[in-house]
Amino acid sequence: MPTYTAPIRDMQFVLHEMLEVSQQDIPGYADLEPDFTAAILEEAGKLSSGVLAPLNLTGDQEGCHLENGVVRTPAGFKAAFDQIREGGWTAIDVAEEFGGQGLPYLMHTAANEPMVSANMALNMYQGLTHGAYSAIAIHGSDEQKARWLPKLGSCEWTGTMNLTEPHCGTDLGLMRTKAVPIEDGTYRISGQKIFISAGEHDMADNIVHLVLAKIPGGPAGIKGVSLFIVPKFLVNEDGSLGARNGVTCGNLEEKMGIHGNATCVMNYDEAEGYLLGEPHKGMRAMFTMMNEARLGVGLQGWAQAEAAYQNAVAYAKDRLQGRAVTGVQNPDGPADPLIVHPDIRRALMDQKSFVEAARAFTYWGAMLIDRSHKSDDAEAEAMISLLTPVIKGFLTDKGFDMCVQAQQVYGGHGYIEEWGQSQFVRDARIAMIYEGANGIQALDLVGRKLAANGGKTVMGFFEQIKGFIKENEGDEALKRDFLDPLKSASKDLQAAAMVFMQSGMKNPNVALAGSTDFMHLMGHVCLGWTWARMAKAAQAGLEAGTGDAAFYEAKLATGRYYMARQLPATKMHLARIESGADPVMALDEAAF
Amino acid sequence: MPTYTAPIRDMQFVLHEMLEVSQQDIPGYADLEPDFTAAILEEAGKLSSGVLAPLNLTGDQEGCHLENGVVRTPAGFKAAFDQIREGGWTAIDVAEEFGGQGLPYLMHTAANEPMVSANMALNMYQGLTHGAYSAIAIHGSDEQKARWLPKLGSCEWTGTMNLTEPHCGTDLGLMRTKAVPIEDGTYRISGQKIFISAGEHDMADNIVHLVLAKIPGGPAGIKGVSLFIVPKFLVNEDGSLGARNGVTCGNLEEKMGIHGNATCVMNYDEAEGYLLGEPHKGMRAMFTMMNEARLGVGLQGWAQAEAAYQNAVAYAKDRLQGRAVTGVQNPDGPADPLIVHPDIRRALMDQKSFVEAARAFTYWGAMLIDRSHKSDDAEAEAMISLLTPVIKGFLTDKGFDMCVQAQQVYGGHGYIEEWGQSQFVRDARIAMIYEGANGIQALDLVGRKLAANGGKTVMGFFEQIKGFIKENEGDEALKRDFLDPLKSASKDLQAAAMVFMQSGMKNPNVALAGSTDFMHLMGHVCLGWTWARMAKAAQAGLEAGTGDAAFYEAKLATGRYYMARQLPATKMHLARIESGADPVMALDEAAF
Repeated sequence: MPTYTAPIRDMQFVLHEMLEVSQQDIPGYADLEPDFTAAILEEAGKLSSGVLAPLNLTGDQEGCHLENGVVRTPAGFKAAFDQIREGGWTAIDVAEEFGGQGLPYLMHTAANEPMVSANMALNMYQGLTHGAYSAIAIHGSDEQKARWLPKLGSCEWTGTMNLTEPHCGTDLGLMRTKAVPIEDGTYRISGQKIFISAGEHDMADNIVHLVLAKIPGGPAGIKGVSLFIVPKFLVNEDGSLGARNGVTCGNLEEKMGIHGNATCVMNYDEAEGYLLGEPHKGMRAMFTMMNEARLGVGLQGWAQAEAAYQNAVAYAKDRLQGRAVTGVQNPDGPADPLIVHPDIRRALMDQKSFVEAARAFTYWGAMLIDRSHKSDDAEAEAMISLLTPVIKGFLTDKGFDMCVQAQQVYGGHGYIEEWGQSQFVRDARIAMIYEGANGIQALDLVGRKLAANGGKTVMGFFEQIKGFIKENEGDEALKRDFLDPLKSASKDLQAAAMVFMQSGMKNPNVALAGSTDFMHLMGHVCLGWTWARMAKAAQAGLEAGTGDAAFYEAKLATGRYYMARQLPATKMHLARIESGADPVMALDEAAF
Repeated sequence: MPTYTAPIRDMQFVLHEMLEVSQQDIPGYADLEPDFTAAILEEAGKLSSGVLAPLNLTGDQEGCHLENGVVRTPAGFKAAFDQIREGGWTAIDVAEEFGGQGLPYLMHTAANEPMVSANMALNMYQGLTHGAYSAIAIHGSDEQKARWLPKLGSCEWTGTMNLTEPHCGTDLGLMRTKAVPIEDGTYRISGQKIFISAGEHDMADNIVHLVLAKIPGGPAGIKGVSLFIVPKFLVNEDGSLGARNGVTCGNLEEKMGIHGNATCVMNYDEAEGYLLGEPHKGMRAMFTMMNEARLGVGLQGWAQAEAAYQNAVAYAKDRLQGRAVTGVQNPDGPADPLIVHPDIRRALMDQKSFVEAARAFTYWGAMLIDRSHKSDDAEAEAMISLLTPVIKGFLTDKGFDMCVQAQQVYGGHGYIEEWGQSQFVRDARIAMIYEGANGIQALDLVGRKLAANGGKTVMGFFEQIKGFIKENEGDEALKRDFLDPLKSASKDLQAAAMVFMQSGMKNPNVALAGSTDFMHLMGHVCLGWTWARMAKAAQAGLEAGTGDAAFYEAKLATGRYYMARQLPATKMHLARIESGADPVMALDEAAF
């Protein structure tokens, strides 16, 4: 059975040595001293290793079951969720007035990482609730906040997001679910929603559905969509639970993975609902949560790769097979461990160098979200908006690939469910699809984010990289191993952006046909830049001589691997983009 | 539910317009006229679409079940297998003296393609049997051939391959299964084998296990391994079935995919076995079948991608979502079909341009096998030995990637099992692992095949490409779109081989650390070359004006896509290889 240990030292390195969080002028960050964050992360790690990880494989095997409208989650899930709730793990960044700890979103992100690595399916119940909490916190009336937020913050009640319908996912303008206003100011919601994660289950007293629906007579298409709060049980004035509302789970989907999470078909039959925010502005309410939600999904991608990697390393050190070509390494054994073989190391280094940079990049993204929300910093807001499709799309594509590589290390055992590697692959796969399929992320990046603010934000991104290189190129080793490859990759990205700009209006298909390649190109530049920043911090650590030399040396070696072996992908993506739209669009539809 | 249609026109194009099979001086090839092969492929296609494909999803969902030592295969499998047997589909290249049709291996490969695409799990029962047939045909005594081959050829009895044990897969020298000789010349086999596909099932009267085991007192390690025939039921002199032998299925593995195929733990308890070939030369017997077996697995990789692609195209044409950015395409509908979107086309073109070249490359490989076996052509034998790790490793890696891309086209529905895309991904995954994990293929390529015949074979490979370019570069369009990119990619491959040669003996880790990249680099060159050959054939078809212009134009457009969008990967792989062994080997084992 797979195991998991939270990589606290790596997490702390990112927080304190790369991001220097306690020195940032963001409200609440001054408290984030190393001892304080370590205490939180260690507790989250213990819970994850000891309670959540042991339920991951069994949760996958047992899955969820629908019986007479009631969804039964896998054995042990409810007790574990109780521990999560009691430990306050769902409310790290929940406002103190609603019972939370009021810490930065970054700390929510960091503390969440081990829980996602250990048991993604279980973590989703709180993840969706966090999304519902945020939506009401931002768009709700004072009365709505008072009513719903304390219970959602603590996860005493859980939340859901209801967007997709059978005939529309990406294109929500086609939505059919209706919300009819009645005299008392409430609405009656009717329609069918699909792919509703945590739509029904046995782990909370109430479920608070956030549902997109159209108010009859409103604008056509996406501009006529409103957002509603629709509880499973109505809530009385005194906060006690009232009658069952007109919402039921019609079916559970049989999925490739995340079996422990109930993916429901939800039927709304004149369910009582309450408008959240303004009428017809439901998509705006959804969009304000998007950077957070997509960062959370990006994290799922690499957090699964972290768990898969840890187990692949253990297997590679334990499994004896063949001899090192450069000389026997384990003379007392019948064979050498797998890890002596260069191609196994290549696979492990791919995983390690990706995950460590993905973590640092994501944490930095979370810091940008804090800066934009807590300091009203418009530049930070613009930057995280630019980076969000990269965090979501690139990190989940690569996270999945890395899970596949970790599985491959196991040989035949990787294909057998009891060894657990198949599950990491199957679970990670959904992160490429939900919260906007990765093709949509790429479209968002090239179709919207590049041009945002007249291109100023992306120019600022390039300027920051340039500035970092300039500032540090006096350091020979850093320059050779990190800054020069980063400069070259960054030039590839600028060249690609130039291709899009030049074709621009004339042929928008050039950018659209190159969108996924651009997202990956930019992802590599982001991780290359992140590695350069981590390398600088590791060098500083080495020079400070705090006695952790092996850690810093390993960090530098891992970074050098990324720069030498992963970053060259930028050239391939640029070449594809430079080939333009014709190769992609030439074929007649009938010829497919 | 997914559907499947055999791409007969594409298959015929490869056979007759690219490979010009009936004009090849290989025994039996003169009969392979277009009408003849079309008749075979169409019948195989009908069986595959009508009988095998409809059992694919249900077979996955039902799986195999072990009850009191008996394995029950999914509903419908036995009846379908009966149709396969009755149609003679298992015996296309079985010798006529043993009841087969005696056709070339190439025709077996081509006729097998639709059956693999339609239902890989079911096809494996006959695939394994084909392997057992070949082993006995090559290494068996006349008596053994007479006894076993007719029943294996017809699949009245099925076969298995028993190599792996719990503690050893790749490194078979660690094997513990014993074969003790007794007075009558037979052996008593005892030990445990795992991952035995089709090890036990209810679809055949007898199962003929080929088992690797060690005769006590023989040489240590891999040089003391012998191969044995161990039937489930002993066979009497008159050919009737006798007593049950001492071999039982101890367990069925729960796997990620190919649920319809029984993957068994096999326990041998003094089972009666018959030496096949010479004592202690069991690995040699295995190796002689390897090119065929690995070509078959390579085919599984892209044949799953073909099936996934067909369904992705159908979904992309049917599903209405969003509007084309260059103008509404489906004004009467609420939205345009997915296929109008450039990023969806990119994904479909990736799949299409890969599968078509993979098919042609594999068929060519099968022709080389025929040339080597039927014409005793040592050069063809050397060439297919060189290409085998590429066919197996590269085509299964990419085949899996393409299944993932096809799944992605479905958005959320791709993750739901009833839509079938998850199964293609899960089934295709095993092809990267079994019959030598792909890391082993890469090792075989750089560690053995490149140096084979003093490097003459790989030089011959480069010479053939060079010759093809030279011969055809008078054609401007071919030169620009196909030959120039091929020349550039081929140079990358030569540069990579040069890196390995120069580091060579000094540091073998350079080649080993670059082995997977080299395999992919060579794979792209092989498919690039294949596309150039197909482009030439398509141009010839266009010029002949046989009225199939749309087909040839599509072929050329698809090829141009591959050259422009896939082939640039060679630069990335070369850059990785050029970074040498240090980035891969630098990290201390403890730092993982």
